Amino acid sequence: MVRVAGVHDVEVGEMSSGVGERWTYLGPQGTFTEQAARLLVDRLCADIPGGTVELAPVAGVSAALGAVRSGAADAACVALESSVEGAVPLTQDELTHGDPLMITAEAYVPITFDLLVRPGTDLASIRTVGAHPHGHAQIREWLATNLPDAEAVMAASNAAAAESVGNGELDAAAAAPVAGPRYGLVTLAGDIGEIRDAVTRFVLLRRPGPPPPATGNDRTSLVLSVGNHPGSLLAVLGEFASRGINLTRLESRPARSKLGVYVFLVDADGHLAEPAMAEVLSTLVRRSALLRLLGSYPRIEGINVPLPEFATDRAYRDAADQVIRWQRGEWG
Amino acid sequence: MVRVAGVHDVEVGEMSSGVGERWTYLGPQGTFTEQAARLLVDRLCADIPGGTVELAPVAGVSAALGAVRSGAADAACVALESSVEGAVPLTQDELTHGDPLMITAEAYVPITFDLLVRPGTDLASIRTVGAHPHGHAQIREWLATNLPDAEAVMAASNAAAAESVGNGELDAAAAAPVAGPRYGLVTLAGDIGEIRDAVTRFVLLRRPGPPPPATGNDRTSLVLSVGNHPGSLLAVLGEFASRGINLTRLESRPARSKLGVYVFLVDADGHLAEPAMAEVLSTLVRRSALLRLLGSYPRIEGINVPLPEFATDRAYRDAADQVIRWQRGEWG
Amino acid sequence: MVRVAGVHDVEVGEMSSGVGERWTYLGPQGTFTEQAARLLVDRLCADIPGGTVELAPVAGVSAALGAVRSGAADAACVALESSVEGAVPLTQDELTHGDPLMITAEAYVPITFDLLVRPGTDLASIRTVGAHPHGHAQIREWLATNLPDAEAVMAASNAAAAESVGNGELDAAAAAPVAGPRYGLVTLAGDIGEIRDAVTRFVLLRRPGPPPPATGNDRTSLVLSVGNHPGSLLAVLGEFASRGINLTRLESRPARSKLGVYVFLVDADGHLAEPAMAEVLSTLVRRSALLRLLGSYPRIEGINVPLPEFATDRAYRDAADQVIRWQRGEWG
Amino acid sequence: MVRVAGVHDVEVGEMSSGVGERWTYLGPQGTFTEQAARLLVDRLCADIPGGTVELAPVAGVSAALGAVRSGAADAACVALESSVEGAVPLTQDELTHGDPLMITAEAYVPITFDLLVRPGTDLASIRTVGAHPHGHAQIREWLATNLPDAEAVMAASNAAAAESVGNGELDAAAAAPVAGPRYGLVTLAGDIGEIRDAVTRFVLLRRPGPPPPATGNDRTSLVLSVGNHPGSLLAVLGEFASRGINLTRLESRPARSKLGVYVFLVDADGHLAEPAMAEVLSTLVRRSALLRLLGSYPRIEGINVPLPEFATDRAYRDAADQVIRWQRGEWG
Repeated sequence: MVRVAGVHDVEVGEMSSGVGERWTYLGPQGTFTEQAARLLVDRLCADIPGGTVELAPVAGVSAALGAVRSGAADAACVALESSVEGAVPLTQDELTHGDPLMITAEAYVPITFDLLVRPGTDLASIRTVGAHPHGHAQIREWLATNLPDAEAVMAASNAAAAESVGNGELDAAAAAPVAGPRYGLVTLAGDIGEIRDAVTRFVLLRRPGPPPPATGNDRTSLVLSVGNHPGSLLAVLGEFASRGINLTRLESRPARSKLGVYVFLVDADGHLAEPAMAEVLSTLVRRSALLRLLGSYPRIEGINVPLPEFATDRAYRDAADQVIRWQRGEWG
Repeated sequence: MVRVAGVHDVEVGEMSSGVGERWTYLGPQGTFTEQAARLLVDRLCADIPGGTVELAPVAGVSAALGAVRSGAADAACVALESSVEGAVPLTQDELTHGDPLMITAEAYVPITFDLLVRPGTDLASIRTVGAHPHGHAQIREWLATNLPDAEAVMAASNAAAAESVGNGELDAAAAAPVAGPRYGLVTLAGDIGEIRDAVTRFVLLRRPGPPPPATGNDRTSLVLSVGNHPGSLLAVLGEFASRGINLTRLESRPARSKLGVYVFLVDADGHLAEPAMAEVLSTLVRRSALLRLLGSYPRIEGINVPLPEFATDRAYRDAADQVIRWQRGEWG
Repeated sequence: MVRVAGVHDVEVGEMSSGVGERWTYLGPQGTFTEQAARLLVDRLCADIPGGTVELAPVAGVSAALGAVRSGAADAACVALESSVEGAVPLTQDELTHGDPLMITAEAYVPITFDLLVRPGTDLASIRTVGAHPHGHAQIREWLATNLPDAEAVMAASNAAAAESVGNGELDAAAAAPVAGPRYGLVTLAGDIGEIRDAVTRFVLLRRPGPPPPATGNDRTSLVLSVGNHPGSLLAVLGEFASRGINLTRLESRPARSKLGVYVFLVDADGHLAEPAMAEVLSTLVRRSALLRLLGSYPRIEGINVPLPEFATDRAYRDAADQVIRWQRGEWG
Repeated sequence: MVRVAGVHDVEVGEMSSGVGERWTYLGPQGTFTEQAARLLVDRLCADIPGGTVELAPVAGVSAALGAVRSGAADAACVALESSVEGAVPLTQDELTHGDPLMITAEAYVPITFDLLVRPGTDLASIRTVGAHPHGHAQIREWLATNLPDAEAVMAASNAAAAESVGNGELDAAAAAPVAGPRYGLVTLAGDIGEIRDAVTRFVLLRRPGPPPPATGNDRTSLVLSVGNHPGSLLAVLGEFASRGINLTRLESRPARSKLGVYVFLVDADGHLAEPAMAEVLSTLVRRSALLRLLGSYPRIEGINVPLPEFATDRAYRDAADQVIRWQRGEWG
């Protein structure tokens, strides 16, 4: 059983990861990231009696990751991509350009906005509604219809707005449902955002080490930058395609400071321990200006496209044996 | 000569576009978008005596584009992509899913932050500094060093923060230099953001019509979605590569609401009127689940990679003639 | 009804081709080529009352084709490829390097060897067996078993050996069954060659003109030479593959006099009048050092692989219309 | 020093191959094949004092190769391809379908025809000229001009015709220059064939064993058959191209008995011991219906296209090390 110790300590049992660990996440408390972190604790530590994971909110993605790099924390939970916004720029830049970290797990959280208030507050008494500017963009229509006279107050984050409601500085906040219990608030209206079915994918990052063992339904994530002559991306994609490896993500990001130069964020079906994936990685090492492996880890959503017959582990093993026999002169 | 009429009217002469027109842009005044719109007015209307372009700030990208679609405005200037953040999600979603609009021109604006204050304000007297949360993320270090005791106040936009300084509600704002004169402010410290060399690309959008004529250094922009079987993007990229057409942008965006489904934003060297480009577009029409042409227009930054010999207009014309002769039986 | 006039005149009716025509073929009489020529006469002229096709045996492929080029004959029937030997070098070199000729029809003839003798001859009385050296290579085992004491006599062709049997100069010949009646011989033993199921493909060649109309099951034949940098053949094959056009033949031939330089003989499913084929031909014209179209004509053996949805005539027409609308500014 | 022992024994010294060996070749004596075999003896055994290679002419390619397979001979020298005719069908079919043999060396011999006569014969006295029918096809023009009244006599081979001249059965033969001394004949006219610059490539075949060590300028030869769905050959060629491996030969041959089915004869730059070649072979093993390795051996004519930077041995080794480090968790 997982138990919250203090506000943020989660009790877990003996395990290879998670026992007595400290995980950072992008705070403040009450964000979707905290929700993702709790999902990961529940999944990874559910079967382990005893133990504690301390969840530590920190200000900023860089701070969360920096704590892992320095050893001050064991892992960090951060948002990787959103179904609405695409790659989260800060996370992606950190993974691309910062000291290497390794993805060891993933979690998906549906993104919804509740109108959170102090218990007892009714619509008619709301004068101010706080949210991050992006949050305000999502609830403009709902406010225009339901609270046309309320003032939209900008906050550094939706959770910060919820905290201000808890402090009495604001009347209401548009924020993640998880922020309600965190700040002693209740939901006055649920799911008031304009975008339906939004979901954000979070990852758990650790200092590099042996990846989690292959489960048969894994992802391998990497960042690569290819030469800017025409056809170079084509060549790279061809390396995956020619081995029958399916890509579930191919997203480009500007390479930091120059328009027109891109890095590509790739999620591929399969695990580093499989020969087809090992071979394609070897190829990319040889061909790419930049290749950074981000990890091989269990896939939580969806099922891998099976490798074609010619790319299975067995096919690779048999073919390698054949070539070695040829090299030795054992034909026939 | 171009003249500002009222606050926002730019006087221009007789011209095919721009004369007596109304252009919307994402307001408020004093944003980088206004700066881009003025660049475009200067470039497109510089040689035309007389006439006026009215620049109308509106709240929101959707409103700016909606005004063009409805005929309330002739054109809209919006940010398309940033060297830091990549594609601007709202613009991109509007271009991908909204009623079709056509890119007819582009402009690049370097992104820098100045600390803007009312004339006479000195550093020591600054208690509050306003900016959009993204702006605050950019100036955190500068503030920690130079104004460690100032309060960071969130605003809906950097320009809105500058307006608040003009109103006396705030002491200082981190905003675009262009916002200074707009709100009667002066620069106390220049270029205080952390990211160097950031630049944003803006486009001028009109209702669809004949594209601007080919200049020899044009871009063709499009959005495409390919089937999700492995190799489909590969096939599409191969269509460009096999014709020697260089891509300056290949950026994926999540397809609105579902993680793992992407549309691709493509900028290709060349113009719709050229046979190599016309042929690749015809191919994409035949093969793509979704293909939306965004326009062919003069390229402002950089020079196209020349088409290989076998893909020039002349090569296409000669080859088409040869095939027609064969079909008619005129061999030899 | 088709009637042989004199030895070699075949009576046919009114027709667009074949009426009162003169066709050359590689003689002497009694070869598989004569058999193919008769097949073609039967097929092409069967339904036409009256008329005559004169079949003229000539010495050598070059002479047969030269007669067509000069106008001395209307068509020539020659072997194009054999299931055993591959491309027939002389035919292929003529088609590749000589003045252009056009394939208008094809025919397949199974290749078998009979032991032909004068009526009344029995095995025991055979002292000499004539054949082309290649023929002798095919019947060596049969002779060793059945006529171990007979002398193998070399001839310029199997039919020439049969003629020598008719003249009394030899006792037996290994030759095409059709040679029997031609030289007054009978079959003493049938199908005595070692290779089973051999078949040769013949074509009817004319001076270039409008190709036969598309039938829905046609072949387009061509010769192409690609640059010798790695990947150039790959690029050419990719042009067919990306349009879903199936190749039934891809055979390389040394380019006349230099080892290591090749031309490629290609048979593709489809007809020059279809847009997918016209587009790929246009592409090859633009990219190939040498491209020679050999013809579009009805396919006699096998059924074309259907074009994928995106490469049908309708898909091409619709896509071309779309691009023209874009060029004109008619979007939506 | 190499010495001819008896007619056909070549004395060589201690060597890993060639010492006291027996090599078969397609006889009779006096053919281009004998000339190639002697070239190979000279090259491979030149530096080895003492020893003998016995060169044994046999009737037929199959017999020559059968002797190697059975152990009756150590090696066989046979023609592989001609610049005029392409692949030699019998050799190629044996290598493709027979029990495996390994190419260990190659030799090139220019093909020319001399008019060979007994000493003292002059043109005016020549009544009969012998040659293989293919030889006759090559000297038809020369005979028409210089010996218009001579009779063309067919022989099983040009060397057999020369032998008949030696025996007094014929007056002259068109044959390889090497046939002259072999049969006590002299050249009356040199180079009388019509095709200029013809050259034939011969190979030395042994029972499979460890290939000759890599020299830095090697060839790897193989036969492959790919599925007949469109694009399968394309995929195979792409495997070579994506590793920067140059092909000097890509020749198709009908798969024995059925028109429209082909095997491909491939010569690739490089050696089985190199990782790029080993990897492509492993890929082909996994993907091909039929893959038969024919050998890796020193290239005698021409220089390999250098591997690109990303495909060198070092690049492969470094990349493999990197992937292993990743698999072990040793990042950074």
